[in-house]
Amino acid sequence: MQLMKASWVEVEEYLQTSKAIVIPIGSVEQHGPNGLLGTDALCPEIIAHRAAAQANLLVGPTFNVGCAQHHLDFAGTITLRPSTMIAAMQDWIASLRRHGFERIYWLNGHGGNIATINAAFAEVYAELSFAKTPPEQALQLKLQNWWQLPGVTELCNEIYPVGHGAHATASEVAVTYAAYPEAQKQVEMTPKIAPMGEISHAYAYRQSFPDGRIGSDPSQANVEDGERIIQKAATALISEFTQFSD
Amino acid sequence: MQLMKASWVEVEEYLQTSKAIVIPIGSVEQHGPNGLLGTDALCPEIIAHRAAAQANLLVGPTFNVGCAQHHLDFAGTITLRPSTMIAAMQDWIASLRRHGFERIYWLNGHGGNIATINAAFAEVYAELSFAKTPPEQALQLKLQNWWQLPGVTELCNEIYPVGHGAHATASEVAVTYAAYPEAQKQVEMTPKIAPMGEISHAYAYRQSFPDGRIGSDPSQANVEDGERIIQKAATALISEFTQFSD
Amino acid sequence: MQLMKASWVEVEEYLQTSKAIVIPIGSVEQHGPNGLLGTDALCPEIIAHRAAAQANLLVGPTFNVGCAQHHLDFAGTITLRPSTMIAAMQDWIASLRRHGFERIYWLNGHGGNIATINAAFAEVYAELSFAKTPPEQALQLKLQNWWQLPGVTELCNEIYPVGHGAHATASEVAVTYAAYPEAQKQVEMTPKIAPMGEISHAYAYRQSFPDGRIGSDPSQANVEDGERIIQKAATALISEFTQFSD
Amino acid sequence: MQLMKASWVEVEEYLQTSKAIVIPIGSVEQHGPNGLLGTDALCPEIIAHRAAAQANLLVGPTFNVGCAQHHLDFAGTITLRPSTMIAAMQDWIASLRRHGFERIYWLNGHGGNIATINAAFAEVYAELSFAKTPPEQALQLKLQNWWQLPGVTELCNEIYPVGHGAHATASEVAVTYAAYPEAQKQVEMTPKIAPMGEISHAYAYRQSFPDGRIGSDPSQANVEDGERIIQKAATALISEFTQFSD
Amino acid sequence: MQLMKASWVEVEEYLQTSKAIVIPIGSVEQHGPNGLLGTDALCPEIIAHRAAAQANLLVGPTFNVGCAQHHLDFAGTITLRPSTMIAAMQDWIASLRRHGFERIYWLNGHGGNIATINAAFAEVYAELSFAKTPPEQALQLKLQNWWQLPGVTELCNEIYPVGHGAHATASEVAVTYAAYPEAQKQVEMTPKIAPMGEISHAYAYRQSFPDGRIGSDPSQANVEDGERIIQKAATALISEFTQFSD
Amino acid sequence: MQLMKASWVEVEEYLQTSKAIVIPIGSVEQHGPNGLLGTDALCPEIIAHRAAAQANLLVGPTFNVGCAQHHLDFAGTITLRPSTMIAAMQDWIASLRRHGFERIYWLNGHGGNIATINAAFAEVYAELSFAKTPPEQALQLKLQNWWQLPGVTELCNEIYPVGHGAHATASEVAVTYAAYPEAQKQVEMTPKIAPMGEISHAYAYRQSFPDGRIGSDPSQANVEDGERIIQKAATALISEFTQFSD
Repeated sequence: MQLMKASWVEVEEYLQTSKAIVIPIGSVEQHGPNGLLGTDALCPEIIAHRAAAQANLLVGPTFNVGCAQHHLDFAGTITLRPSTMIAAMQDWIASLRRHGFERIYWLNGHGGNIATINAAFAEVYAELSFAKTPPEQALQLKLQNWWQLPGVTELCNEIYPVGHGAHATASEVAVTYAAYPEAQKQVEMTPKIAPMGEISHAYAYRQSFPDGRIGSDPSQANVEDGERIIQKAATALISEFTQFSD
Repeated sequence: MQLMKASWVEVEEYLQTSKAIVIPIGSVEQHGPNGLLGTDALCPEIIAHRAAAQANLLVGPTFNVGCAQHHLDFAGTITLRPSTMIAAMQDWIASLRRHGFERIYWLNGHGGNIATINAAFAEVYAELSFAKTPPEQALQLKLQNWWQLPGVTELCNEIYPVGHGAHATASEVAVTYAAYPEAQKQVEMTPKIAPMGEISHAYAYRQSFPDGRIGSDPSQANVEDGERIIQKAATALISEFTQFSD
Repeated sequence: MQLMKASWVEVEEYLQTSKAIVIPIGSVEQHGPNGLLGTDALCPEIIAHRAAAQANLLVGPTFNVGCAQHHLDFAGTITLRPSTMIAAMQDWIASLRRHGFERIYWLNGHGGNIATINAAFAEVYAELSFAKTPPEQALQLKLQNWWQLPGVTELCNEIYPVGHGAHATASEVAVTYAAYPEAQKQVEMTPKIAPMGEISHAYAYRQSFPDGRIGSDPSQANVEDGERIIQKAATALISEFTQFSD
Repeated sequence: MQLMKASWVEVEEYLQTSKAIVIPIGSVEQHGPNGLLGTDALCPEIIAHRAAAQANLLVGPTFNVGCAQHHLDFAGTITLRPSTMIAAMQDWIASLRRHGFERIYWLNGHGGNIATINAAFAEVYAELSFAKTPPEQALQLKLQNWWQLPGVTELCNEIYPVGHGAHATASEVAVTYAAYPEAQKQVEMTPKIAPMGEISHAYAYRQSFPDGRIGSDPSQANVEDGERIIQKAATALISEFTQFSD
Repeated sequence: MQLMKASWVEVEEYLQTSKAIVIPIGSVEQHGPNGLLGTDALCPEIIAHRAAAQANLLVGPTFNVGCAQHHLDFAGTITLRPSTMIAAMQDWIASLRRHGFERIYWLNGHGGNIATINAAFAEVYAELSFAKTPPEQALQLKLQNWWQLPGVTELCNEIYPVGHGAHATASEVAVTYAAYPEAQKQVEMTPKIAPMGEISHAYAYRQSFPDGRIGSDPSQANVEDGERIIQKAATALISEFTQFSD
Repeated sequence: MQLMKASWVEVEEYLQTSKAIVIPIGSVEQHGPNGLLGTDALCPEIIAHRAAAQANLLVGPTFNVGCAQHHLDFAGTITLRPSTMIAAMQDWIASLRRHGFERIYWLNGHGGNIATINAAFAEVYAELSFAKTPPEQALQLKLQNWWQLPGVTELCNEIYPVGHGAHATASEVAVTYAAYPEAQKQVEMTPKIAPMGEISHAYAYRQSFPDGRIGSDPSQANVEDGERIIQKAATALISEFTQFSD
């Protein structure tokens, strides 16, 4: 079930049977010459919605803008400062706890979010830890990157043995192409495979990675591959989330 | 053009011709027994995407969670504190300005957001106003509620002369039904038309409005009406945004 | 009773009979060539003090500096950022609740404060709404602009059928002249009636409104008119506040 | 000149001759059985306004609510958290600097404000100190407690050799009585002279100081003494501020 | 006992007998040509560790970076903004209270910290004071500057009748030399005794005090003097802390 | 060179030859029955000071309290909230940049700090990335955990093939014992090797790990092993930092 398309009555009923929810979390940032700006938000959303269509699993709204400061020299990128992102995640979690949710599974689409998501978890847990008495309501916060769901990295490496890369990867572009075929873009990549390197601020990033890609050749992406990855990830998510819910 | 499905190259090209962008902004909150929790985020998104399909207009990601503290006693509602929302809007605006956007049109779907959106505008403007020299880059921030786009309120009142209401309105439910017919819910409303009243915190809200609706009979909502409203609003948005862009 | 001139013992006694208080809230900002910088703080203060002299009504200290970023290009203007104003109002409200006040009536003198006052209300209510149990202590926050007290706008329009305006209005200048006749200033206005327009940051404001006024001819203001407006507003306040207190 | 009763044009003219301003800063807090809740805000305001009537000195609005957490167990007390007060003072100072003010003299009425005022100064200075180049615009922030203006403590001790005290002092009550004789309160004090002690939070405070006073017998206060103190302080302020302005 | 070198079991045992702890608090800032950047953190740490070696007294970690914005024009200085320092002290205090500590004695090494430490105390107390019921757990926060421990100022003045000074004092340099003789530096001072003056931001500071010292001749500092001061202060600390603990 | 024991003149000279600095960063938290509360701050400090004694490398003060909310149910643990830690690191970095440092190497002693350190880096970089022009001053922030310095993990595994563990590890206890032999504690461990598991808030932590250890048998720790690890890590640090500095 997608929370955005459910009524409050339906969510209240769901809470009779489960205290767990999936929140897709991503970023709006450049993904190279043929990747979508929304890639990192769309990938976990696509996978979670697929899973919700195949199993009894509640998916919340997508936390779509994350930590993307290093991409700001490319048009269209939108970022939160980490401190803002922590505050926003605190509010989301406080809202969900208010309804009785006790297990919140964040399905993440962006490596640059990992640190701040974990910092936000610690910020929320700290409130419970400072209290002189144990919390009356349990709380478990889990972060999973979609590409690290069991079997997914293996599949991506199998499909793209060369040029999978680290940013604007062939696999994430494929996932979005599968879901939104009309958004496919044919772009010649130069060089074929983008360079690798370190990340700091946006100006340094663009010097190291002139077209935005890191280590990838996303011109390999296509709808069929994307579909295979989506289904693999959705199946793994259903299994992992089911375990997490119990 | 939808920014989420565009590449950074495409956004850079758009910026050659226009410095303006539409940001749909909404809320995730109960919308009565048959309305979707995502209604207030979905309505401006649906309208803006329709407009983007019919004219050269850039639509950014949807700012989906807003100020909904008064709905927190109904399952599924998610809110930001106003101070968090101000911080997040500051970051979105700073990101967009970084790329050269100078006119940001916030198409809003939630009455409860209006105060905080305007406060966020003042927070951003204040930074320019405190500076000892005028800003090098122009900035215009505009808030428009989709139901106040020229002609829309009139149409809604025409379609729903009785029981249009103030929250979980017949028209907003219809807009989401038109876009997501599979999410329609058949629910008997009791009373037929919900009571009116004042809003404060979530516990008081639920006492005044037991099923979440205010003044409305959204069981009237249907796909055909929704479609008429979407097209009316999209046409008005294209016209108003075009003027705003120049 | 004015809280500033009462002892704590007297306030404690007042609380035996009423849990309600009026807080005048305004701004320190330019009010055109003949208006006082303190106009927006002084008007609600003058009206509330008049009411307190005529009825059993407790008036707190004046929240004198508000949201005036758009006036910063005119000497003497002082502003809070909206986020600061929210924090300050939170502290005022927390203090008043500590003593048992449950109904706080903010009598506002500045249109530019409205959004942030409402955002502050939502920030305070959110704390109650996030809690897993209903608040033990009731809380009602009300915003009223003095010029919208029943009958006041009508009187102002009657006195100033032409050139009442939107900022540095004839009526607000008159109110301050009536209370502080020694502060009257004779200034020739050019043009007689100031232009209308939109508001953003301070540099744009000054370009649109070179002497600070918007749409007004405040040279019409005089002590007698001011006195009529004060008394009208004070009477309306007593009536509205009495109802609010119960 | 009082800024609140001046026009922006008048302040602009003042800035041609001086970059200095006085800001009265106080607190709203219990002052014992016969003292006014507004005492600490009113005293510096009364003295500064007296000075402004006798010399060319600009007095800004009164920063009326300060750090009074320790008095919260007495009805009517209003406090800011220190962090809020720092933010608000930053905004006031940024506003004044925007107009060209370079020397801001804070005339303080409350011992409990001293630490936070100095912390706020450091917060503002830090911004200049972190910058890689020296500030283009000078900035001098000065704190003076009205009772420490040259000669004032001596006069107070002379008038009240016994029971002047440390909070709700005879002298501060006298100052407010002189300015607002209608607010005088006749209250029998028990004990005649209140105890001395240490301050922490509000519950501990009330245990140590049951009627709010510390070490004082403010029943000695009267209008004549108050008048002498006001004039002494105003004269000293004129002299000290004149020196500060140059 | 030094908390940093104790196990949690040992601290738990200590808490059976005492709810009090000493926290050395200082600054990292220039201390003239021959003083250590760590002087203000090292002095209270040295004294507290000496005391802990001679009596049953628990010393926590050193809060080493404080408010030093005015020294930022000298290499190596590190500062917190006051608002950051308040937040950090809040967290330290919340942590200590969690374990049952009720009396926290801050042994301070830096005059520039005093205001912010007291502001932080008020910030923490305010939380208790806003609550509608008295705190279940007592809390006493005490600030003591090591040079104001009984007898210490007298000893310093006796040892250095001339050129003791106000910053980079002969005595504080001596204390660090006694503890870290290898860090002694032989530097010729010009002028012999540094000037006195007022403090604002870092650029103004350096103009007034070109080599960083204020009013001092720290070339007088030596190990023997330092040792006498350390022992005097440690003895006084033991006595004062013992009294504070009861 | 240790910054804390250097004068500003010495740091200024160092800056002529290098723009790089090491900051040890740790935590104050329980480390099981025989480990020191200061372990995570002491380890990187010990290693960095050793390196500074053997090479030309500047070591700043130790950022001693970090993110330890999960240990709060054990006496003596002190934590910052992640948002506070981000603010404090921002201030440290701003201070160091003020002096011309461009490369800041954070030598970390606590796994629980990693997320927040990286979030703080992103917060600092974001400021540069939002700017419309590239930064004039370069900035490189690097995080290295001391146990991941080249060769160190291998050595630890070699020395402790069984029961090295994940928290309160044999190796970190050994490092502190080598530096502070007087702080060694003989404690029988039950069970010999502590359990493994997941981390959330403090109450859950204590249930999973009753004496604080995770997966370790730190009773194996001794001075000789610690010394070997320290020297290995110091040598690796010198090499890595030298490369980082260029």
